[in-house]
Amino acid sequence: MSESPVNVLVGKTALSGTWHEPNRLIPGVLFVHGWGSNQRNNLQLARSISRLGCICFTFDLRGHAATSDLHACVTPEENMADVLAAYDLLAAHDSVDKSAMAVIGSSYGGYLAAILTSMRPVDWLVLRVPAIYRDSDWKKPKAKIDRTDLNAYRDLYLEPEDSRALRACAQFEGDALIVESEKDTVVAHPTVASYSAAFRKAHSLGHRVLDGADHGLTDPGCRDAYHRIVSRWMSEMISAAREHQ
Amino acid sequence: MSESPVNVLVGKTALSGTWHEPNRLIPGVLFVHGWGSNQRNNLQLARSISRLGCICFTFDLRGHAATSDLHACVTPEENMADVLAAYDLLAAHDSVDKSAMAVIGSSYGGYLAAILTSMRPVDWLVLRVPAIYRDSDWKKPKAKIDRTDLNAYRDLYLEPEDSRALRACAQFEGDALIVESEKDTVVAHPTVASYSAAFRKAHSLGHRVLDGADHGLTDPGCRDAYHRIVSRWMSEMISAAREHQ
Repeated sequence: MSESPVNVLVGKTALSGTWHEPNRLIPGVLFVHGWGSNQRNNLQLARSISRLGCICFTFDLRGHAATSDLHACVTPEENMADVLAAYDLLAAHDSVDKSAMAVIGSSYGGYLAAILTSMRPVDWLVLRVPAIYRDSDWKKPKAKIDRTDLNAYRDLYLEPEDSRALRACAQFEGDALIVESEKDTVVAHPTVASYSAAFRKAHSLGHRVLDGADHGLTDPGCRDAYHRIVSRWMSEMISAAREHQ
Repeated sequence: MSESPVNVLVGKTALSGTWHEPNRLIPGVLFVHGWGSNQRNNLQLARSISRLGCICFTFDLRGHAATSDLHACVTPEENMADVLAAYDLLAAHDSVDKSAMAVIGSSYGGYLAAILTSMRPVDWLVLRVPAIYRDSDWKKPKAKIDRTDLNAYRDLYLEPEDSRALRACAQFEGDALIVESEKDTVVAHPTVASYSAAFRKAHSLGHRVLDGADHGLTDPGCRDAYHRIVSRWMSEMISAAREHQ
C-alpha cells in the first residue's frame, strides 16, 4: 500500500488529494513439464495460479509436442537452455515482479527447475516427483540414457555434492515445496528424500506425499489434490510477500 | 484470466509457449467527506479498500483543510465541481478500470456522491448517513443555509422527484449500500429512508443501521463496524465483477 499526495485543480483552486494505491506485486510463475509430457498437462494448474494474481508461463520443452522430431537426440543440457530461455521471457514481462519468481517443475522438469535456481533468481520452487540423472549424462541424448543404471541411481540416498541438481537445492535460499507420489514407480523414494534433505539453506521447506498417487498423477482425484496443495502454498507465499512489500 | 500463445526462441528452435494472465480489474474508489470534516477521516478506510486491489482517492472539499478560508462562502454547486474534478482525476488514472468505479460519501459527501451518479458513470455507491438539502439552496453558501428549515426538511419522507439527489438515486442502476447511524441527531431517519426508497432501478441495495452510532461515528467501535461493513461489501462487489470479466 502506497500513499502519495496530489493536487486537484478546480478552476483556480487547488484541493489537496491523496492516492491510495494497492501493492502491485504480480509474481511470475514458470511451469516445466516432465519428459514425454507437454505444457497441456500444466494448463489447468496455470489457470488456477494465475487467478491468484500471477502471470504464469507454460511451454513445450524441445523434443516434445511440435518439436517431437528431436525427441531422440535432445540432451538435458539443451532442455536446460530451453528452461533458461522461457524463464528469461517470463522475467522480461512488463508486469512481472522480478523479486517474486516461482518455478514449478514435474519429474524431469523438476530436475531442470532445481538446476535453474543456481542460474537465475528463484524465490519459490515447487518440485513434483523430481527426477535425477547422473551429472555425466548431461550432454547425452536424454532418450538414450541407460534405464537400468538410472533406476539403480534413483534407489540411492544421495548427498548434495553427488549431483548438480542437489547442489543447487543446497544453495537455494527461497521457499521450497516437494510433492511426492506414494505409488511412484519411476522416481524412487530415496531420490525425493535426497532432494528434501538437500534444502539446507531454504527459507522454508514443505514435503507432501500424495496418498495412492502414481508418478504421472493419472488419477483425477490425486491430480486435484496436487492442484489444491500447490494453489494453497502459492497463495500463502504471495500473501506473505505482499505483507512485506 | 486470459491465455495467449507465444514462441520461445532457443537458438534456431522455436518452442510453443503460453501466457496465462490474471484479470487485471483495478477499481477506482472516490471518497467524499462530510461538511466540516476532511480527507483524513477517510484515510483508514481508503487503506483497507486499497488492500482489496483498488486505487482509492481521497481529497479535501473546497472550504475545508487548506482552503478553510472559503468555508463561509462555498456552495453545494462549487463542491459538486470539486467532486467532478476528483472523479475525473481518478478515472484518468492509467491503472483504473473505468468500468469499475465506486464512490463512498458521508453526510454532505453522500448528498454530492448521489448527485454525481447522474453526471458520471458510477458502478458502486456507498452513502453513509446521506444528508439532503433543498434544490433551491444549490447556489447558496452551504454555511448560510437556514438550519431550522433544513432540520424540518430532513424530517420529511421525500419522493425522488422532490430532490436532485433522490432523482439521481432513482435513475441509478449500479449497486448501492446505505449505512445509517441509529443515534443520528443531524440527519433524521426519514431522510435516510427516503434515499433507500429512491433506489428503484438499482442492481442491488443494502441498508444497514449501525446500532448506537452517532452521525460522526465518534465511537471507535462503531467506526470499526462501519469499516468492516464497507470492506466486506466492496470485496463482494469486486469478486463478482472479476468473475464476470
